[in-house]
Amino acid sequence: MSGSSSARRPRAATLAIGDELSSGRRVDTNSGRLARALGALGFEPVSFSVLGDDEDGIVARLRALCAEVELVCVCGGLGPTLDDLTRQAVARAAGVELFEDEDTLTWLRGRFASLGREMAPTNAQQALFPEGATPLANEVGTARGFRVRLGDAWVVALPGPPHELQHVFDAGVAPWLREAFADAQPADTAQFFLYGLPESEFAGGVGDWMARDADPQIGVCAGGRVLDVQLVRQGTDAASLASFHGRVEAFRERFSEWIFSEVDPEPSAALARLLLEHGVTFACAESCTGGAIASRLVAHPGISAVFLEGLVTYSNEAKSARLGVPADLIARHGAVSAEVAGAMALGAARTSGARLAVSTTGVAGPDGGTPEKPVGLVHVGVALDGVVTTHVLRLPPHGRERIRDWSATSACELARRALEQALGAL
Amino acid sequence: MSGSSSARRPRAATLAIGDELSSGRRVDTNSGRLARALGALGFEPVSFSVLGDDEDGIVARLRALCAEVELVCVCGGLGPTLDDLTRQAVARAAGVELFEDEDTLTWLRGRFASLGREMAPTNAQQALFPEGATPLANEVGTARGFRVRLGDAWVVALPGPPHELQHVFDAGVAPWLREAFADAQPADTAQFFLYGLPESEFAGGVGDWMARDADPQIGVCAGGRVLDVQLVRQGTDAASLASFHGRVEAFRERFSEWIFSEVDPEPSAALARLLLEHGVTFACAESCTGGAIASRLVAHPGISAVFLEGLVTYSNEAKSARLGVPADLIARHGAVSAEVAGAMALGAARTSGARLAVSTTGVAGPDGGTPEKPVGLVHVGVALDGVVTTHVLRLPPHGRERIRDWSATSACELARRALEQALGAL
Repeated sequence: MSGSSSARRPRAATLAIGDELSSGRRVDTNSGRLARALGALGFEPVSFSVLGDDEDGIVARLRALCAEVELVCVCGGLGPTLDDLTRQAVARAAGVELFEDEDTLTWLRGRFASLGREMAPTNAQQALFPEGATPLANEVGTARGFRVRLGDAWVVALPGPPHELQHVFDAGVAPWLREAFADAQPADTAQFFLYGLPESEFAGGVGDWMARDADPQIGVCAGGRVLDVQLVRQGTDAASLASFHGRVEAFRERFSEWIFSEVDPEPSAALARLLLEHGVTFACAESCTGGAIASRLVAHPGISAVFLEGLVTYSNEAKSARLGVPADLIARHGAVSAEVAGAMALGAARTSGARLAVSTTGVAGPDGGTPEKPVGLVHVGVALDGVVTTHVLRLPPHGRERIRDWSATSACELARRALEQALGAL
Repeated sequence: MSGSSSARRPRAATLAIGDELSSGRRVDTNSGRLARALGALGFEPVSFSVLGDDEDGIVARLRALCAEVELVCVCGGLGPTLDDLTRQAVARAAGVELFEDEDTLTWLRGRFASLGREMAPTNAQQALFPEGATPLANEVGTARGFRVRLGDAWVVALPGPPHELQHVFDAGVAPWLREAFADAQPADTAQFFLYGLPESEFAGGVGDWMARDADPQIGVCAGGRVLDVQLVRQGTDAASLASFHGRVEAFRERFSEWIFSEVDPEPSAALARLLLEHGVTFACAESCTGGAIASRLVAHPGISAVFLEGLVTYSNEAKSARLGVPADLIARHGAVSAEVAGAMALGAARTSGARLAVSTTGVAGPDGGTPEKPVGLVHVGVALDGVVTTHVLRLPPHGRERIRDWSATSACELARRALEQALGAL
């Protein structure tokens, strides 16, 4: 049985098309983006498919999906080149011919003219649509999407470039879905992000709340050092709603020690939010994370109000020259040590004038490990209002990239906790 | 018809399982990773599927895929929690029961004991496998994979966490596939990575080399400011091989101006390789890219030999204090200017002692744009052996994340070109 017992949620599937996707040369991010948008509109997204530029394969999968769900969103294959097959495949699957849309052809010619360019003959195929289809406007590219009935389902075809897909969906699909599927109601959900709890211990702690027939259902996903937990209400009656609210409250209480956010999937985002909310200035000094902490924080719009600077002090010289870490401290304890991590954090805070500063120094590998300081050993320093604390991480040696990723996540969370405690104590 | 006319390539599909994937909360990167690995082993990867934790849905899709292809790789759903359904679903699809593997149970208990922890009762289900299955060792987690016959196809079940999947695949799947599918021959392929050429101009330049029946076939994928081009040999005879080599040579010549690598998909990787090869020391000073350049370079093992330091000088004060950019230069031209970009690069080189330094300063948005300096305007400075050059990028306003990503890519490539030219001139 599917998870949802509510009869009100129509089911949706996505189908992304392109050899560059099916060969693994490029990651399909459109399906996930669409699934989130469809979930918010009250659909239950049940599956993604990714297929290469193979017309027979696309036709077969389209027919199968349209027998399973009420809505299929196709991404890609609407371009002007010979390997763009979506319009042909949808027409074949629906058993109709293609027609040339006069309005689209005029619009295409005008678009090229306004750019001072002649329209290439191949672009004319972008004015072809399956009979019965309604074209969907695209103001940011040449590939108009379309929607058409196929059996008992709707097929919506969207351009592949993510910003075009987003534009066409927002402008022409979402408003239509709200009308055409007016009964669709998004399920009540609650989201929790936990740091530092192993998945097996979570499973023990959550117990039969995770039973297959529980309402709400709980799904969990472990990534790096974060658990992403979602509670989804199943029933539609008042008892189910009360049970949902009670479970959310109980969950919040039982796991309070590990929950760092109910909104931000990454500690860096929760940290950025807290810094901005309270106007706390921030700096970082990174060795093994090499700019990952700075880069994650700078991803947040408006962060320039509080982010003063980041330093990637990879060499011992840079640690001394930039952060004032005494050379003899490095000589005595080694660059990878709690002492140096603390001095780096304090130095970053002092030289930048930031209230909060965080530092990392560790052995990311693959080389450089010793029995005393193995690959995966990372020290984190946190300096807040002149007071420094250090933390030691012993990460499994699962490769340079993951060690750096986990170190950056941990450092952000340790800094966030220090700040949260200090703010709470005021 | 599928692109490949060679009869020797067995077909493979992937099936990734998890509500966190099908709901769009997490992006499935395993399928792409597997597709690349399978392609290298001589398989033709034809489709990915992503399904939620719904046993009926998984059973149905498994049966359908096993009727289409010779190999189905299932990712995820092997954990200890109640929403981990892969072993049950594969057994049902194959029409067999589950058995408890004594050896796996002993290994699991030992694994927890060595960590000083009691094994949770829920972990015992990780010792269950479909009858007839061969367990696959996992040295980096508790989820052993397995392989089992299902109809005329093989099903290989792998753990979901990417590093566990990679480990189990490399250790227990790839060696077995090489034997079990000894006739599979990877197609000859050539790869080119181009920077700075718009896709439509590429299409014009490549002409009928991209026809549907051409041998080799050419696939192109535009991402950020990079074109990822692959030539794949179609035929199996000597003439096809000669045609493949000739086309690769001609391609290399025709697009030499834009090709930055035949190996590294990212300019940062090509830059790191060049720095290490020639022992050229490097530093970076980042404003709008906020650590992304440092982070990309530090991703390369061994880079500490040449990477001296990175500075994220977000505030004007940091630009002056850390890099010696004169305050009146910033006042006169603004922080986002060619003048400041040049002074930042020169300052980074000077204060760190690096031979090569690169800088970025720009308007990443969403706010802060003006008619003179709109969102997407980015200046890049490159200082090499004391000589500074600056470049201006006018990026489309497609969001903060993309502008930062493209800026970092461009800065790395501009630095790489400057260094390549200087080295070539010696």
